[in-house]
Amino acid sequence: MKTIEGSPLYRIMHPNRLAVIGASNSMVNMGTTILGNIMAFDFKGEVYPVHPRLEKVLGLKAYASVKEVPTVPDLALIVVPTKIVAQVLQECGEKGVRHVIIVSGGFRESGEEGKRSEQELLEIAKHYGIRFTGPNCIGVVNPGHRFNTTMFHYNASMEGFIGMISQSGSFITQIFIHLDKFGLGFSQGISVGNQADIDIAACIQYLGACERTKVIGLYIEGLSNPDDFIQTSREVSKNKPIVAMYVGGTKAGSRAGRSHTGALSASDDIYNGVFRQCGIVRAYSLEELFDFCWALGTQPLMKGNQVAVFTHSGGPGATAADAADRAGLELPSLSVNTQKKLHNYVPRTGSLSNPIDMTFTRDFEDIMVHIPRILLEDDELDGILMYFLLNTDNFKRLLGKAESALFQTLEEFEMYLIQLCTRFAKQAKSSNKPLLGSSFLQRNERFIRELEDLGIPILPSPERSAKAMGALYRNSVMRNALNLEARKGRPQGA
Amino acid sequence: MKTIEGSPLYRIMHPNRLAVIGASNSMVNMGTTILGNIMAFDFKGEVYPVHPRLEKVLGLKAYASVKEVPTVPDLALIVVPTKIVAQVLQECGEKGVRHVIIVSGGFRESGEEGKRSEQELLEIAKHYGIRFTGPNCIGVVNPGHRFNTTMFHYNASMEGFIGMISQSGSFITQIFIHLDKFGLGFSQGISVGNQADIDIAACIQYLGACERTKVIGLYIEGLSNPDDFIQTSREVSKNKPIVAMYVGGTKAGSRAGRSHTGALSASDDIYNGVFRQCGIVRAYSLEELFDFCWALGTQPLMKGNQVAVFTHSGGPGATAADAADRAGLELPSLSVNTQKKLHNYVPRTGSLSNPIDMTFTRDFEDIMVHIPRILLEDDELDGILMYFLLNTDNFKRLLGKAESALFQTLEEFEMYLIQLCTRFAKQAKSSNKPLLGSSFLQRNERFIRELEDLGIPILPSPERSAKAMGALYRNSVMRNALNLEARKGRPQGA
Repeated sequence: MKTIEGSPLYRIMHPNRLAVIGASNSMVNMGTTILGNIMAFDFKGEVYPVHPRLEKVLGLKAYASVKEVPTVPDLALIVVPTKIVAQVLQECGEKGVRHVIIVSGGFRESGEEGKRSEQELLEIAKHYGIRFTGPNCIGVVNPGHRFNTTMFHYNASMEGFIGMISQSGSFITQIFIHLDKFGLGFSQGISVGNQADIDIAACIQYLGACERTKVIGLYIEGLSNPDDFIQTSREVSKNKPIVAMYVGGTKAGSRAGRSHTGALSASDDIYNGVFRQCGIVRAYSLEELFDFCWALGTQPLMKGNQVAVFTHSGGPGATAADAADRAGLELPSLSVNTQKKLHNYVPRTGSLSNPIDMTFTRDFEDIMVHIPRILLEDDELDGILMYFLLNTDNFKRLLGKAESALFQTLEEFEMYLIQLCTRFAKQAKSSNKPLLGSSFLQRNERFIRELEDLGIPILPSPERSAKAMGALYRNSVMRNALNLEARKGRPQGA
Repeated sequence: MKTIEGSPLYRIMHPNRLAVIGASNSMVNMGTTILGNIMAFDFKGEVYPVHPRLEKVLGLKAYASVKEVPTVPDLALIVVPTKIVAQVLQECGEKGVRHVIIVSGGFRESGEEGKRSEQELLEIAKHYGIRFTGPNCIGVVNPGHRFNTTMFHYNASMEGFIGMISQSGSFITQIFIHLDKFGLGFSQGISVGNQADIDIAACIQYLGACERTKVIGLYIEGLSNPDDFIQTSREVSKNKPIVAMYVGGTKAGSRAGRSHTGALSASDDIYNGVFRQCGIVRAYSLEELFDFCWALGTQPLMKGNQVAVFTHSGGPGATAADAADRAGLELPSLSVNTQKKLHNYVPRTGSLSNPIDMTFTRDFEDIMVHIPRILLEDDELDGILMYFLLNTDNFKRLLGKAESALFQTLEEFEMYLIQLCTRFAKQAKSSNKPLLGSSFLQRNERFIRELEDLGIPILPSPERSAKAMGALYRNSVMRNALNLEARKGRPQGA
């Protein structure tokens, strides 16, 4: 797929005339929340609530049936009781609606009867040429189209680059809150539910062609169609990283997935093999999934696994080193030449070994400009991990009480920090070498926000930055192998 | 040790007359930051800055030498260049100072010459009967005494129950920021540095006797005196949980620790054996260390490893289940009796299997009161993991637009939530069964803050709550074994 317009998902993610079937004016109704959310996100298209009795829903004119809507909706969202979903879908088909999101649950995930009901939906859809996501899903979010059918208000970044495909609706919608902590956001997010029609493979293909999507995140409970998944992922991951969290590899996780989306799981070994074959990086938690997506969506490929850890605090340096080692990276001793250059900036109590430890310094320029440059320029290093937690709080407290050569006011100090961040980010971005930062500070600290918004991931702990660097390395190795195979015309597994 | 007053650490943590040797009025001076911080935390004792030339330091009268201080300080903090530390310590001894914190570095961690200088410090101390922490440390924090000699302002909870002992100063001081994210705090925190005199074992003994300390956290790069450590830890962990993060088990971590605090590390296998023998739970990252401390410092012991996961979202339920399984816990099928009771509260689209999944509901009372009660009362369950992310945002948005039987205004809604939190916490606390919550929301959401302040840990992801429950289980097993051995009078390893 070259462009997203060719996909059945295109209209589902970019509707202009939307029927919402199942919203009311009652707060305890799920459809009401969804419609409220669609409106709150300032959706630009037409919205037609459908309700058998109400004249108005949340202030909008309502229609007794989708057939009475004065135009043909290009997307219908169905959130009605299980037993009438088929009938409503049928009416959509008769009306000429060709794209549907079925939110309602109670199908394959709830047993044999549900399985039959799901089959019925599929037959109706086939008859009318309807393409749909769900059932048992939370819908989609596409910030660029100001379209969010999920349960939570989209408050994450509008510049998001993570394309998310999830068998759990929560990991589309509740995760907005998590992304917002880091200034991250979705390019597009799709809750696939039971995948009766449109499946994960189709979504991967779609997001593979999406220009805003720099990395694809997957939450998987079990694959229904492994062959399609493997073929599509192998193709897409040659050019775009894919990260997957899979929960079906344990007894408890597998049972949970089965009752959640009726997914068929298999052992960790099998899935690890599949992921490797597909060039997919595995994550073992949702936090890890988004940590890895952050790194993979912003940083260049790694040439090897030789990493430098740069810190001004011994402990964070040591935990980063320990975690890097466990993540398959190596911390080489630095070359004599590099050590010589560093010597000018690292005090005697510091360390020129790797980790490079500044210990105590008050020269922010050494930390943010001079030392990073030396490390980025060292050809023996493939990536840089940098811990920082500039003690701005004390600086602010001491301003006016103690002497400083650099600045006399808080404003001067802040401006100084921001220009340092800009120089730092510019230098890192131009180097074509991965650099991941870490800090216990969060975005409420101005300079962390600046760095993150300039495209430098600042992971919330040294260990997490090291693990994310490990993911970068694994992705680079797998991607190179896939592209090499492709050039040789010799597919693996054939 | 029965009470903390008998420890040499008591005066170091509770000084009344403090000499600060090495602060100036220059911002780029580490001592200045420390003194500024001591003053900013509203320390109640007397403070005597010592500086060879200045008349005033940060507004306080300064003395040319510690000998000129008009009284005998009960604690001296030394943060001067390496080469004059011994001389300053000597002067302290002559003055009659018997407790010292040596912040200055450049000793054992920097090679043979440094090792000799450190030996010299020890001899001076022995001669005068001085007990000290450091060198190469960041000092201590004792919020209850409003005493903080570290680099960062203490902004974490004043009700902290975590006693921290660290070979990294950062993990005493920079971690305030991390603790504050969760409403946590230190009871007392000690940066041991090179442990020339007072070592980790002495600190464990001290915090073992500290009533405010409910759990002890350790950051270890390498043990200098394993026998003392083992003996003390085995004794203390019979009554108080100990959690340790150790970084010396990897090649990179070991090297980093050596250049940081001159620590001698050993393999993971050896340390895992030591930790097991001591009843210490190991953590593999700083985040994990504090997650575990949170759980162990607030929750009762676990009788077995049978856990229920309760969720209103399938994905978080499945990731918690998967992580619980990997952490050594089991998710049993629920008894017929419990399922029958749950049946009244879980909708048809939900699941009565384990995880118990509410799917969509708007009855917060079912989530917060009725279902937790059933699970807490089930004798076949040893612990409860609960994911929640109440969609209050949408409730607020829909107030006034849609109908609600329960409340008409935002205030009513907030009050309703808060009383639910109170009932929830009361029920959980009275059950004598561990319950850990998780949510992607943070403390800026009112009901999360309420729950946390009521003593319910709300971990930042389902997986982290499951891992922390695993730590609770491991601690319970080890503690029971240690106490059983003690009753039998048969020490392990003998």
